[in-house]
Amino acid sequence: MKNIPTISNPSNELLERALELKKSSQDLALKTNNQRCQALLSMADALELRAEKIVEANRADIDRSESTGLSNALVSRLKLDHTKLQTAIEGVRKVSLLPDPIGVRQLNRELDHDLILERITVPLGVVGVIFEARPDALIQIASLSIRSGNGAILKGGTEASLTNKAIMQALQEGLGSSDVLASSLCLLTSREESLAMLKLDGLVDLIIPRGSNELVRFIQSNTNIPVLGHADGICHLYVDKDADLKQALNIAIDSKTQYPAACNAIETLLIHNSVAPSFLKEAIPAFKQSGVTLLGDPLSQALGIENSASDSDWSSEYLDLILSVKIVSEMTEALDHIHRYGSRHTDGIVTANNETAEIFLRSVDSSGVYHNCSTRFADGFRYGFGAEVGISTQTLPPRGPVGLDGLVTYRYLLRGIGNIAADYSSGKREFIHKDLSL
Amino acid sequence: MKNIPTISNPSNELLERALELKKSSQDLALKTNNQRCQALLSMADALELRAEKIVEANRADIDRSESTGLSNALVSRLKLDHTKLQTAIEGVRKVSLLPDPIGVRQLNRELDHDLILERITVPLGVVGVIFEARPDALIQIASLSIRSGNGAILKGGTEASLTNKAIMQALQEGLGSSDVLASSLCLLTSREESLAMLKLDGLVDLIIPRGSNELVRFIQSNTNIPVLGHADGICHLYVDKDADLKQALNIAIDSKTQYPAACNAIETLLIHNSVAPSFLKEAIPAFKQSGVTLLGDPLSQALGIENSASDSDWSSEYLDLILSVKIVSEMTEALDHIHRYGSRHTDGIVTANNETAEIFLRSVDSSGVYHNCSTRFADGFRYGFGAEVGISTQTLPPRGPVGLDGLVTYRYLLRGIGNIAADYSSGKREFIHKDLSL
Repeated sequence: MKNIPTISNPSNELLERALELKKSSQDLALKTNNQRCQALLSMADALELRAEKIVEANRADIDRSESTGLSNALVSRLKLDHTKLQTAIEGVRKVSLLPDPIGVRQLNRELDHDLILERITVPLGVVGVIFEARPDALIQIASLSIRSGNGAILKGGTEASLTNKAIMQALQEGLGSSDVLASSLCLLTSREESLAMLKLDGLVDLIIPRGSNELVRFIQSNTNIPVLGHADGICHLYVDKDADLKQALNIAIDSKTQYPAACNAIETLLIHNSVAPSFLKEAIPAFKQSGVTLLGDPLSQALGIENSASDSDWSSEYLDLILSVKIVSEMTEALDHIHRYGSRHTDGIVTANNETAEIFLRSVDSSGVYHNCSTRFADGFRYGFGAEVGISTQTLPPRGPVGLDGLVTYRYLLRGIGNIAADYSSGKREFIHKDLSL
Repeated sequence: MKNIPTISNPSNELLERALELKKSSQDLALKTNNQRCQALLSMADALELRAEKIVEANRADIDRSESTGLSNALVSRLKLDHTKLQTAIEGVRKVSLLPDPIGVRQLNRELDHDLILERITVPLGVVGVIFEARPDALIQIASLSIRSGNGAILKGGTEASLTNKAIMQALQEGLGSSDVLASSLCLLTSREESLAMLKLDGLVDLIIPRGSNELVRFIQSNTNIPVLGHADGICHLYVDKDADLKQALNIAIDSKTQYPAACNAIETLLIHNSVAPSFLKEAIPAFKQSGVTLLGDPLSQALGIENSASDSDWSSEYLDLILSVKIVSEMTEALDHIHRYGSRHTDGIVTANNETAEIFLRSVDSSGVYHNCSTRFADGFRYGFGAEVGISTQTLPPRGPVGLDGLVTYRYLLRGIGNIAADYSSGKREFIHKDLSL
C-alpha cells in the first residue's frame, strides 16, 4: 500500500476463474455439514503431509525478504515455522468442531394453515480475502470459508508468495480427496488481480481485508462489494468521577499494555477533573513502569504528564505503548470527544455509579461499550464465538467481533399447497401469522 | 433519471445540516419507546390539522405537472387527495402500534461470573431516503424512521416539491410538540443536494431508494453508504414434471396478474417439457383471457405460443402483463436459467414431488424460494412484519422483505467488576461462556 494504485477492470482470465469459483461455491452450498467437516479434516491432513515443503517455501520467502530489507516486524509476521504451522493446522481441525452456521432456522411462521414461512441461514457464496504478510491467515480464512459453505478467492502479500502457493496446493489436494471441489478455493498471485477483485460485483459477495488500516481504508472506498473489517481502532477509556481509582488504573493498564498492537487497545484516556489529581498521581508512575509514554492535554500536563498531546493525537491509532490523556469537566465532554474522534470500535467507562454507567452505555454508539472492564475483551474468541472472521466497525450488522455467522446470510422458504395472493386480497382467506417453534 | 448526472461534493450548507441531523439523531436514540410513539401520534395529528394545506399543495403540483406533460401514470402516483392522505395518516398511527425494534436483547452471556455480555438492538443513526413521485412515501418513511429511533434525510421528486414541503412542515410541527427534536427530519429540495447525499459517508448510515430500477441502480453504484433496495425483480416460476397442472396454472396466473407492476410478479415461466403440451393447452387461453401476452422460446412456440421471446426477454422486468415462457428438459436447466438471468428476488417451483421441491429450495439462491404458492407473497406485510421498509436483493442481511428491523443495528454491552484480559491469558481466570435467558 505504498502508492495509490489504479484499479483496472478484471481480465477475461480472472473473470473465468471467478465464474468457475462461483459455480464451485454453488456446489459447495449443497454439501452437508458432515461433508464440509470432512473436507476440513482432509485439508488439515494434507497440510501436515506437505508441512516440510511449506516451511521450506517460507524459508525462501524469508531469505528473499531479508535481502530486500523487509523490516524485522514484517519478517517475524511472515515467518511460518513447524510450530506455527502445526498450530494453524490444529486451528483447521478446531473449526470443524464449531457448530454448523448453515441451515439454522431463524423464523418459522404459519402465514396461513398450510402456508409456512421459514428463514434459514445459507452461505454467502464467495468471499474475497486480501491479506498481508501472515501466511497462516490463509489457512485460517480458507477453513472458515469451507466450514460456512463459501468459496474463497484469496490474495496474500507478495513477500509470502511461495509460502501461500505451497499452502494453497496442500489445501486443494486436501479438498481433492473430499466431497468439496478443489476449485472452491482460488489463489490470486498478482497485485493487478487483487485490485481487479474489487470490481467483481456479483461474483464476490463479501470482501475481508486483513492488513494495515491503510489497506482496509483503500478497499472500503474502492469497491461496491460489502467489506467486513475496520480501518481504525481508536478506543477510549473514561475514568468517571465516581470511579474506583485502583480498579480504573488496573483496567487502563490492561487496556493499553496487554497487547498494544491490537485494535481493541485504548489510545486515549479521558479523566474526570475531580479525580484527575489523585488518579494521575498513581497512574503516571504505573504507566512509566509499564513502558507507556503518556501524552497529555494542558490540564493533565499541569498534573505531571511530561509530553504534550497535539490535536492529531486524538485521532491517532498508535498500536504502540503510547497513550494520549485528556481531562474533562463532565461526562458529556467525554461523550463528545468519543463521538468526534472515536472509530466506533470499543469504548469503556470506569465508574461505581451504575446510573452514570447506563447513560454512557446508551450514549456511545460503538460496536462495544463497556463498564468496569478492559477494552481488550472485544474479540470473537473471548465473546465465545469459537472463531473470529474479523472485527467490523461498520454500522450495519454484522458489527463488532464477527464469528462464523458473519459468513452466512439467510433465505426465506415458503411452502404452500397452491396458495395464491388474490385469495387474501379479496378477503376469501386471512393471514394468521402464527409463530411456530424454531 | 433521464441523464446520467455528475455527483458534486456536499456543500458546506449541506454538511452543516447533516451534522445537525446527526446530533438530533443521537438525541433521538436516547428516547424511550413511549416518547417515540408519542412523537408519531403527534406527527399524525399535525398532518390531520394541515390536511387542507397539503392537499392544496398537491393540487398545485399536479396542475404544474400536467401542464408540463407528465404521464398519466406518474400524475396518478403523484396525486394525494384527502382519502389517500387519511390512509397515510392512519399508517403513521399503526406504526406506533408495532413492537419496539429498539432495546431487544439478542444475546445474554456470562463470559465469566460478573462479566456479562449483552447484544442489544440500537438505531442505525441517520437514514437517507430518495423517493420519486409518490408523496405518501415521505409520510411512511418518516414514521418508520422515528419509530426506530433514526433521524432521516429525505429527498422527493421535484414534481411533488410543494406537497413534500407541506408534509414536512406538518411532520416537524408534530415533532415540535413532542419530546423528539423537529430537526430529526430533514427535507432536501434540490437535485444537487440529493446527489451529494450519496457522499455523506459517516453522516448517513443507510440509503433507501424508492423509485425506478434505474434510480436504484444508479445509487447502488455511486455511493459507499450501504443501500437497502433492489434494482430488478426478475422472478421465475418453474412448472415441474410432477406438478399438479391445475394448481400450477392457478399459481402462474396469480404470480403474473395479481399486480403485474410489483417487483414480486413473475417475468418468466419455465416448464418441464414432459408436461408442457398439456399445460400450455390450458394455459395459453387462460393467460389470453387474463390479458397476458406470452412470448415463447422455439419449443413453446411449437406448442402454440404466438410471439417469440428474444434473448433480452430473459433479463427483462416487464412490470406489465407480459410473460416470457421457456421449456426445459430437466430441472437443472431451470436452475441454470434462474442463476443466469434471475435477480435473486423470489423464485418458485410447482411440483407434487417433495424431494424435487427440496432440491429447488436448496439450490436457488434468491431471497425467497417458494414451493406451490404464488411469488406475490414476497412482501413485508404478508410475512407478518407489520411494515415494509423495502425489499432487498443484496446478499448480506437484511435480505428479502425488510421490516422495521432493517432500520436497526446492535451494540455489544459488557459489564464487569474490574475484569482485565491479562487474568484470562495468564490462566488465572477462565472464560465460562454460559448463555443466560434472553
